[in-house]
Amino acid sequence: MNDDIVRVFDTTLRDGEQAARINLNTGEKVQIARQLEKLNVDIIEAGFPASSPGDFDAVRQVAAEVRGPVIAGLARTKEEDITAAGNALASAARFRIHTFIATSPIHMEYKLKMTPAEVLKEVESAVRLAASITSDVEFSSEDASRSDIDFLAEVYALAIECGARTLNIPDTVGYAMPNEFGEFCSNIIKRVGRDGVIWSVHCHNDLGLGVANTLAAVRAGARQVECTINGLGERAGNASMEEIVMGLRTRFDHFGADTRIDTTKFFSTSKLVSHLTGVPVQPNKAVVGINAFAHEAGIHQHGVLCNRATYEIMTPESVGSPGTDLHLGKHSGKHAFGERVEQLGYHLTSDQLVEAFEYFKTLCDKKKDVSDGDIEAFLMDRIIQATPVRQYELMDYAVTIGSGGKPTASITLSHKNQDITEAAVGNGPVDAAYRAILRILNFEPELTEFKIRATSEQADAVGEAHVILRYKDIRAQGRGASTDIIEATIRAYIEAVNRLYSAAAAREVAI
Amino acid sequence: MNDDIVRVFDTTLRDGEQAARINLNTGEKVQIARQLEKLNVDIIEAGFPASSPGDFDAVRQVAAEVRGPVIAGLARTKEEDITAAGNALASAARFRIHTFIATSPIHMEYKLKMTPAEVLKEVESAVRLAASITSDVEFSSEDASRSDIDFLAEVYALAIECGARTLNIPDTVGYAMPNEFGEFCSNIIKRVGRDGVIWSVHCHNDLGLGVANTLAAVRAGARQVECTINGLGERAGNASMEEIVMGLRTRFDHFGADTRIDTTKFFSTSKLVSHLTGVPVQPNKAVVGINAFAHEAGIHQHGVLCNRATYEIMTPESVGSPGTDLHLGKHSGKHAFGERVEQLGYHLTSDQLVEAFEYFKTLCDKKKDVSDGDIEAFLMDRIIQATPVRQYELMDYAVTIGSGGKPTASITLSHKNQDITEAAVGNGPVDAAYRAILRILNFEPELTEFKIRATSEQADAVGEAHVILRYKDIRAQGRGASTDIIEATIRAYIEAVNRLYSAAAAREVAI
Repeated sequence: MNDDIVRVFDTTLRDGEQAARINLNTGEKVQIARQLEKLNVDIIEAGFPASSPGDFDAVRQVAAEVRGPVIAGLARTKEEDITAAGNALASAARFRIHTFIATSPIHMEYKLKMTPAEVLKEVESAVRLAASITSDVEFSSEDASRSDIDFLAEVYALAIECGARTLNIPDTVGYAMPNEFGEFCSNIIKRVGRDGVIWSVHCHNDLGLGVANTLAAVRAGARQVECTINGLGERAGNASMEEIVMGLRTRFDHFGADTRIDTTKFFSTSKLVSHLTGVPVQPNKAVVGINAFAHEAGIHQHGVLCNRATYEIMTPESVGSPGTDLHLGKHSGKHAFGERVEQLGYHLTSDQLVEAFEYFKTLCDKKKDVSDGDIEAFLMDRIIQATPVRQYELMDYAVTIGSGGKPTASITLSHKNQDITEAAVGNGPVDAAYRAILRILNFEPELTEFKIRATSEQADAVGEAHVILRYKDIRAQGRGASTDIIEATIRAYIEAVNRLYSAAAAREVAI
Repeated sequence: MNDDIVRVFDTTLRDGEQAARINLNTGEKVQIARQLEKLNVDIIEAGFPASSPGDFDAVRQVAAEVRGPVIAGLARTKEEDITAAGNALASAARFRIHTFIATSPIHMEYKLKMTPAEVLKEVESAVRLAASITSDVEFSSEDASRSDIDFLAEVYALAIECGARTLNIPDTVGYAMPNEFGEFCSNIIKRVGRDGVIWSVHCHNDLGLGVANTLAAVRAGARQVECTINGLGERAGNASMEEIVMGLRTRFDHFGADTRIDTTKFFSTSKLVSHLTGVPVQPNKAVVGINAFAHEAGIHQHGVLCNRATYEIMTPESVGSPGTDLHLGKHSGKHAFGERVEQLGYHLTSDQLVEAFEYFKTLCDKKKDVSDGDIEAFLMDRIIQATPVRQYELMDYAVTIGSGGKPTASITLSHKNQDITEAAVGNGPVDAAYRAILRILNFEPELTEFKIRATSEQADAVGEAHVILRYKDIRAQGRGASTDIIEATIRAYIEAVNRLYSAAAAREVAI
């Protein structure tokens, strides 16, 4: 075992997605997994197969399609969870079952309602069962940082005895402080031993210390780090992969250990995940924020001109930050376009590429410069999210607004080969358009999220809309993109309606 | 000196604003300073008076109007900087001059082009001069964490001898690791001594460790922390005030020291700063992100229902996180409205309150529920940002869009008591409207930033637009808000034009 290699266990698709308030569909999860493979992560936690049929299916699909990294599935200690994980993962080149149970007094008493002895029994049966399915078993003690250290040592020793080869120490609630967490991990590792096993940590960011706690654990001997792109995850999220990895790389003098990550893919991966989940990245986010390498003060700019190292400890190039967007135009060919799409982190089939290139050409007729943001928006809207069966299709729309009268919209949708047109007034153009659509639909979904943004800093930027609809406890997201922001909001709504139909059909709910 | 009190030195208006790519105007800076006073920060760094006449004026205004905290101004070691700071701050109840010079080999050699002996001379003359103006002098060694510790000890000892009472140790480039930075601070404090002085730290977040480094320094004996709201600041920003303060408060068992901050004001302060600077807060931001207290996984929700402490180490109430927006409606009176405005962190004069309440009533006629986001958007658009002299005023607009033809806009602006109407087509409604406006203006500003967002999750949410225009190297921002997102973009553009006129007049540039 290489002691100077820190393994990167990405849980964007599990802990990250679970916090995004929406479910990514299988195609979207595969896109992210493919990009994680390019980034060269060691393990991808693709989901929690027992939690829903959608999760099971996504894990199965990722396991079947992504061959580089180990694919992991989460499972409680219940037999049905472990069996489901094994089934979902069976077609993977290499797979891991990751089982967990809480070990802190408060979790055992109030949530599990189990005694420590009962918890030990669960650990034994779960790890043994998982080890009978695969040789790659990971065990986590949920809320480890608030657990009794003697009990914890007993739990981990038992897990190893039953066949676990990766032992994970989570700071589930983000309570730990770096110096105490480093010492805590060091103590456990010393007591339980490290022969033939890898110690791992999984830190949450409630007090802004997820990355610091993770790095403290690496110094204490952990050789796997669990993390997510953009720090997505429950509540304030998980430790950010990009920050952990750049910390280890920039300060190799301090750690003497490094990951295998291709850091030049960080920027595109961050944007891809942000686009797919709808969760924005703040400009001052370390490593991948758009201002992370911007020097604004006169004194700083002067310093950087004299010597970059005065104010820069890593280069923008090392994380793939483009400085400025590259722009393509009407003279860009299909090859250049395809390369750019790959660089942006999208993995299209050749049919999808042909379709995307056609949209690109249409857009070039409308605008002189097509930015990366424009390309990402229409890839997302027209190519990636496409539902197999579309119940409603936008045929025509017209909206009139102004200080003279009430905003008015007319919309024509095609449904079962029939065009239906309706009109409505509303408070603003979006409200008018959505009221017109509701008059066409046979049911009334509730709008639970509504976001709009511009893809670049120009008046003719592509506008992007992101909506989430709910109907009978089913949620679906839709995205729309257009140089007309109002059209984008209409397209997003209709896409969410189509996705509601698919989701309802999968769960056998009538719409 | 209370050894268990950690002083909070806020630099949102200096390091934070310098990174926001725009200049807040004086009125906006005073709004933020008033809210920082309510938050009970100990020191407000209001700006860098020598850097521009606008900064000088803002520092003077904050010093005159905000009486609770100490008001600080930044100054290089140059005589004119220190004099300017003294002049700007003179009317404050209590003020501090904060002078700094770089001490790392790379900064001295490449940026300052000075020998260590020359740097020592600068420290001596600057601190002596500052101490002749005020007894409250702070000295910072820029890039301290990459400086030679022997030299650094000499520098700090000299600064104390010359009259500095606060000694700041910055990790200017965000390079330090918490354990080494803690040790580094501990060594310096031991060597230089702590009698009659306060040690301070100022940590940047390039590797995501700004908060961790700050907390490590507190354990090493620092009793002042420099930080910003939302972690704004150069590049990846400064350490976040809300994370540092909640770390100390939540883990008092670990630190034995606490701040005087009223943490229940964090959420409103964070939103106010985000609105005024146009820099969004990501949902998974610790403490103040909208998801920071959201439990999404079924297992977590179950745990929280059994006992909140299973997954919550602090309550949303403790940081003023409202859970859900409060909504006001047409039956809400002026008193309730005024209270809500205060809770949101806005400080209005009674005239402004009367005007704001009138807008509120108009909005109630358009929409059933008026959310906090709606109120914030129109306060910003119609009350806070108002320029004293408005060159152009929106009188009328009409926009038509649809799949049938090119987006078309007509706009009427009033300029010097004359109405001018123009029309244009464009790629999308915003582009069409901006082209029509450009036909009315006598000059052609460049659009350098364009953002749109919805204030809440409803189709009739108030849409908010934020634009930055540039003309002859002058930049100005404008915001607009309306239930019609297109109207919001038009208003934002016109406001930015009006602000360009004010900024140009102040700099004696002709438009």
